[in-house]
Amino acid sequence: MTAQDPSAQGNTPRKTPLGVAMIGYAFMGKAHSNAWRNVASYFDVPAFEQKVLVGRDAAGVAEAAAKYGWAETANDWRSVLDREDIDIVDICAPGWMHAEIAIAALQAGKHVLVEKPLANTLAEAEAMAAAAQAARANGVQSMIGFNYRRVPALALARELITEGRVGTVRQVRASYLQDWLADETAPMTWRLNKETAGSGALGDIASHTIDQVLFLLADQVTEVSGRLHTFVGRRPGAGGPASGMEEVTVDDAAWATLSLASGAIASVEVSRVATGQKNSLKLEVYGDKGAILFDLENLNELRFLDATAPVREQGFRRILVNEPEHPYLGAWWPQGHIIGWEHTFTHEIRDLLTAISTGTPPSPSFEDGLEVQRILNAIEESAAANSSTIRLSTPTTSEGA
Amino acid sequence: MTAQDPSAQGNTPRKTPLGVAMIGYAFMGKAHSNAWRNVASYFDVPAFEQKVLVGRDAAGVAEAAAKYGWAETANDWRSVLDREDIDIVDICAPGWMHAEIAIAALQAGKHVLVEKPLANTLAEAEAMAAAAQAARANGVQSMIGFNYRRVPALALARELITEGRVGTVRQVRASYLQDWLADETAPMTWRLNKETAGSGALGDIASHTIDQVLFLLADQVTEVSGRLHTFVGRRPGAGGPASGMEEVTVDDAAWATLSLASGAIASVEVSRVATGQKNSLKLEVYGDKGAILFDLENLNELRFLDATAPVREQGFRRILVNEPEHPYLGAWWPQGHIIGWEHTFTHEIRDLLTAISTGTPPSPSFEDGLEVQRILNAIEESAAANSSTIRLSTPTTSEGA
Amino acid sequence: MTAQDPSAQGNTPRKTPLGVAMIGYAFMGKAHSNAWRNVASYFDVPAFEQKVLVGRDAAGVAEAAAKYGWAETANDWRSVLDREDIDIVDICAPGWMHAEIAIAALQAGKHVLVEKPLANTLAEAEAMAAAAQAARANGVQSMIGFNYRRVPALALARELITEGRVGTVRQVRASYLQDWLADETAPMTWRLNKETAGSGALGDIASHTIDQVLFLLADQVTEVSGRLHTFVGRRPGAGGPASGMEEVTVDDAAWATLSLASGAIASVEVSRVATGQKNSLKLEVYGDKGAILFDLENLNELRFLDATAPVREQGFRRILVNEPEHPYLGAWWPQGHIIGWEHTFTHEIRDLLTAISTGTPPSPSFEDGLEVQRILNAIEESAAANSSTIRLSTPTTSEGA
Amino acid sequence: MTAQDPSAQGNTPRKTPLGVAMIGYAFMGKAHSNAWRNVASYFDVPAFEQKVLVGRDAAGVAEAAAKYGWAETANDWRSVLDREDIDIVDICAPGWMHAEIAIAALQAGKHVLVEKPLANTLAEAEAMAAAAQAARANGVQSMIGFNYRRVPALALARELITEGRVGTVRQVRASYLQDWLADETAPMTWRLNKETAGSGALGDIASHTIDQVLFLLADQVTEVSGRLHTFVGRRPGAGGPASGMEEVTVDDAAWATLSLASGAIASVEVSRVATGQKNSLKLEVYGDKGAILFDLENLNELRFLDATAPVREQGFRRILVNEPEHPYLGAWWPQGHIIGWEHTFTHEIRDLLTAISTGTPPSPSFEDGLEVQRILNAIEESAAANSSTIRLSTPTTSEGA
Repeated sequence: MTAQDPSAQGNTPRKTPLGVAMIGYAFMGKAHSNAWRNVASYFDVPAFEQKVLVGRDAAGVAEAAAKYGWAETANDWRSVLDREDIDIVDICAPGWMHAEIAIAALQAGKHVLVEKPLANTLAEAEAMAAAAQAARANGVQSMIGFNYRRVPALALARELITEGRVGTVRQVRASYLQDWLADETAPMTWRLNKETAGSGALGDIASHTIDQVLFLLADQVTEVSGRLHTFVGRRPGAGGPASGMEEVTVDDAAWATLSLASGAIASVEVSRVATGQKNSLKLEVYGDKGAILFDLENLNELRFLDATAPVREQGFRRILVNEPEHPYLGAWWPQGHIIGWEHTFTHEIRDLLTAISTGTPPSPSFEDGLEVQRILNAIEESAAANSSTIRLSTPTTSEGA
Repeated sequence: MTAQDPSAQGNTPRKTPLGVAMIGYAFMGKAHSNAWRNVASYFDVPAFEQKVLVGRDAAGVAEAAAKYGWAETANDWRSVLDREDIDIVDICAPGWMHAEIAIAALQAGKHVLVEKPLANTLAEAEAMAAAAQAARANGVQSMIGFNYRRVPALALARELITEGRVGTVRQVRASYLQDWLADETAPMTWRLNKETAGSGALGDIASHTIDQVLFLLADQVTEVSGRLHTFVGRRPGAGGPASGMEEVTVDDAAWATLSLASGAIASVEVSRVATGQKNSLKLEVYGDKGAILFDLENLNELRFLDATAPVREQGFRRILVNEPEHPYLGAWWPQGHIIGWEHTFTHEIRDLLTAISTGTPPSPSFEDGLEVQRILNAIEESAAANSSTIRLSTPTTSEGA
Repeated sequence: MTAQDPSAQGNTPRKTPLGVAMIGYAFMGKAHSNAWRNVASYFDVPAFEQKVLVGRDAAGVAEAAAKYGWAETANDWRSVLDREDIDIVDICAPGWMHAEIAIAALQAGKHVLVEKPLANTLAEAEAMAAAAQAARANGVQSMIGFNYRRVPALALARELITEGRVGTVRQVRASYLQDWLADETAPMTWRLNKETAGSGALGDIASHTIDQVLFLLADQVTEVSGRLHTFVGRRPGAGGPASGMEEVTVDDAAWATLSLASGAIASVEVSRVATGQKNSLKLEVYGDKGAILFDLENLNELRFLDATAPVREQGFRRILVNEPEHPYLGAWWPQGHIIGWEHTFTHEIRDLLTAISTGTPPSPSFEDGLEVQRILNAIEESAAANSSTIRLSTPTTSEGA
Repeated sequence: MTAQDPSAQGNTPRKTPLGVAMIGYAFMGKAHSNAWRNVASYFDVPAFEQKVLVGRDAAGVAEAAAKYGWAETANDWRSVLDREDIDIVDICAPGWMHAEIAIAALQAGKHVLVEKPLANTLAEAEAMAAAAQAARANGVQSMIGFNYRRVPALALARELITEGRVGTVRQVRASYLQDWLADETAPMTWRLNKETAGSGALGDIASHTIDQVLFLLADQVTEVSGRLHTFVGRRPGAGGPASGMEEVTVDDAAWATLSLASGAIASVEVSRVATGQKNSLKLEVYGDKGAILFDLENLNELRFLDATAPVREQGFRRILVNEPEHPYLGAWWPQGHIIGWEHTFTHEIRDLLTAISTGTPPSPSFEDGLEVQRILNAIEESAAANSSTIRLSTPTTSEGA
């Protein structure tokens, strides 16, 4: 395979191991590395090698590569696109770099995994989706890292909903509450600046809730009403309180209602100032035959209520999603030995590798990422227009199936 | 005391027992009767007598009076207003009758307790608040039955918030989920008809959530954005499916965000189709120093997080609100012996009787009920205007303190 | 009916209301009074009247009678046995008085309800059971107040077990943890003195756990091994620390394993020093087809697991036992409106009255109480013999069905 | 370092990476491999290499080594003891092999980690403890794999108890409930045969509960009373039901009470037939100033009650043990991103490597393992003697600190 001839790869299984390059080694890089380092110990995946870790700081990237199991390092992401021994590019760099790297990598014939959100602007996201579509025609795959689709309990939730076990879904409640900004003396960071971060809680965590609504219901959003708010508008600068206060230019909480094509309605609420809530992504799905509840702080559990059972014995059951019968769980430990948050990525990498080896486009796609982006955009638009309802012009088909 | 001379009562404690008349004996009448029948067994209250139960159906009211402990019955509510031995009128009749009865009773010098919501229309509610104000000047008291202010756990929540234990409140989440209309074959009733019911989930249960926001925060709503939806638009008529389908003209779910004068923002979501949720009023209050969680299905418990404790040992604590140190609990059982939902009314009647005997206007007042009504109205208005934000013209001061 | 001719009552429904006398008005008297005062408001029961409250202190009993709804008072319990208008004697006096009063009342032809435990000694309990048997032949009924049999969730648990929904029961875990003696400065009381109380946590709360094992499984205990312990052996006397320390002569914690005739094994653990546990009676029943969990601090809930469901969707479901389909619940409030601890007594009185009116011996019987007493005795015997196993000589048939 | 000169290693930090050999690659081998593969990515540990995986089946061990990250394989565990490049032997072989391998390895100067229980017989355990003591004098370290000491929540529990936050501990409740043998058609295995397994639930899971009691309280057991039971006494042989039934010769449930030197009393109950309980190790510690609750199925949480707080606001708080302030957590993810069961081993290996590099004997020691074994033995002895109390002859000091 060469950068000039991406089609050479296509659906033909490779004889040599797939070479992987990862760009970025902060929080997400650490989590993705863990997945790459362990996935083959648990799942049957095509052979691959953790070839190169890319980062601008030579010393930093060298240290990270040694800790996280990468064979080599590089300082310029462009260098890996030229290498014939690199087949997959895993982009964990900040959001404003996504578009440039992903499009170049796809054009160079590299399969691409990119962290969410897809991009900082809708225009970038659209360009990325177009690039993904073009590359796919050549057998080059791409995937956006909405890792919570790989929480076994949520994969089970989707199965149950798809099988009709909750019937027709009417009402959905999705919230993602954190509290790392509850302390008003927590300092300013690039994440709180609209220039660098695009948005605040909306892009960072509402994106997860919206992707889950689309994933669980296999549905499309047609209209939104939204609201954004910044509870703590000024924070100490990087130099501490003495250096003066800086303006926070992104939201630290957001609210929305989403109309879905099916007739269902979903509410979304997210916060970075919900004191005492650490990483609480909660999902509630109410149908006419049953219901489902989930909380990421107990990610090995799913609550399911079957409303077709006799009333006398109805109730939400706590399913400990740790049985071989459950999605992904056959690979792990005996029942009741819970797995951690990081394995959402292990499962993601497993599914990416399987998709590449079988030539099947993985899910969620860049188009799924674009769809979420469009919805986030519409929420911002509504928020700027006194929460009045915004109709999504051309609802893209969700490919979340 | 005579109907002609209401001021004669005033603040002077009566020598003879207070005479009570209750109008209506359905669900709320049963619950209020329980409170009247038991309050004096647990609390020191002025002497009173369950004199008259009023209902239009002679046989029905006679049976109810016998069961619920009322000495006499009457068929016309007007008759009790003329009786000198009646001091208190407890109105459990449907909402569209509230205004006429309450105003007449107040004008006749009777203390009035009226079930929520205050009225079916804003105009009625305003007339009632005016009548209450006039009567109060004459020492005649009035109260609206937002009984959840008397859940001991919520009374404790208010104490903690008032004492500053959660700091400055930023975000509030209030939801009230039920599922009694989840079954689409459940038949039409007067509660699903706008003519008779005024509104659906909004007036019935969102009113509780909004009152709690006002109560817990002692704050005022300045702006709202809202949405209403009817998931099941047609239902079998009273005669069953064969008799044809009838149109449901009220909402079975509602959503809103509320801006508060303090700068806090509250979200509200209510539903009668949330399968598996039976009577789940949930309240979450997030401040900069702590947080509070509550669920009516476990009404003896309050979750409280103190964010000023060392991080290592922070966590929501489950306070079993069953100690003599807790509001109302000194009257009941030893610790851990939980009380039931119906005693929210027992506490309400206790506080009403105490207020009457001390000549202190009880809380919540008709004005508090009017304030909730105004907010509900604004939500309807916003819902009719694509959820765009509605500013409340003249925020009345909450007297919930 | 006269005391001389108890058989005259028998199964023939009385025309005049049943007259009730209650002896004692402390904690249990308050709870029983609540039941008598309210039972007819919720259930169809034969007519009765709260005639006499009996207590030795004239002023105290007068005040209690006024608060709790009793028409008259008396100071000597013997006086009520002579009255023709008294049909039922409800004994809430301390345990050491049970035998004398109950036997005399039964012999006087009065139906008797006695609080648990049946008696302070096995000999007394045997005499009481004999008296109950003799009276029953004359149509005079008797019942022991193991009120937790009337927790709706536990009545439902029994139904499910009886129907085979958990299959063959193997292992049962029963614990009752409280903490009112955790504070070592809590003063000495008659409850901590073996002379007056018989035993400590064992008789007071282990009796409930053992009754539940017998009730839920409809089984018999054949062997026990037990242990008793007093963690706080000396406490301040009634006069406070200055008055010197007194010796605690009963257990404040107890442990046992029980072998059941069916082959099941139950463990029991109770404590009055389990800091933070307020009134936590927990029951766990594990069968080969399912399991059941219960906690009295959330008495409106039952956890049930159906092990015959597909593994993928198995889990303990939280049944909110508040539906008309559930035992006793048709009489109360709409779904999700929870009831309180005190209504275990309301249901008990309802069942007692129904049994009397139909001439059916109520359950649990004095023999059931005796059986529990025998087991408690055997635990004490085992505890005194280094926990070595004690075989129960002649297991009496449980009539708990 | 050579096998002939174990003292050569001693406390001197090695220049070259420590070489690790692991024996066994079933469940525990998979879990330990995960720890070796990942520990250096999260923690600062001395350099080491996963050198050799040992297993009797050449094909099986080769496949496992490839999956789990071991450089070489061997079929005879003795071969690794002769290698100079092996410094650490991690024994995941079945219990009956522990003594022979561990003693030989220690004598060859290898640091040894051995899975629990220490051995199948007390004699073996004593020989191992003696070997460990002798080796320690030469700077050769040894450790028993009671991995639950490295659950962060339990490490936090120990810290809180050590700091006096629960005061003087009185009552402890420890249970470990599983249900993998609830199905009576589950076939016979070597684990159900006394010859090969030593004991059943007792050695397998009661050992964990007892180690936790010793760990959390830093206390010693002085007396025990115990009981063992086999609910399913016959199971289909390996050839299925047609091949006939085989006798189960170990317990599938066990009960005990333990007296501790401090005066505390602990109860233990374990089961493999507790339907619906998957891996539920529960610990409850009640002191005079507070209490602690834990459940392994939610291993990222600790419940803590501070009884010195005002009664009004007391309650068990759910501490999500995921903050940098918590033991081991600084190495992992941001708050609320929970870790899985397998990292109890990652932490164990981290502490082992640190102990080796600093020359500090790691904890828990073989002597700690022996102490647990003595207690298990005494429980068996008591069970064989009608549960009568057995006094432990010479309580060894726990070195669990």
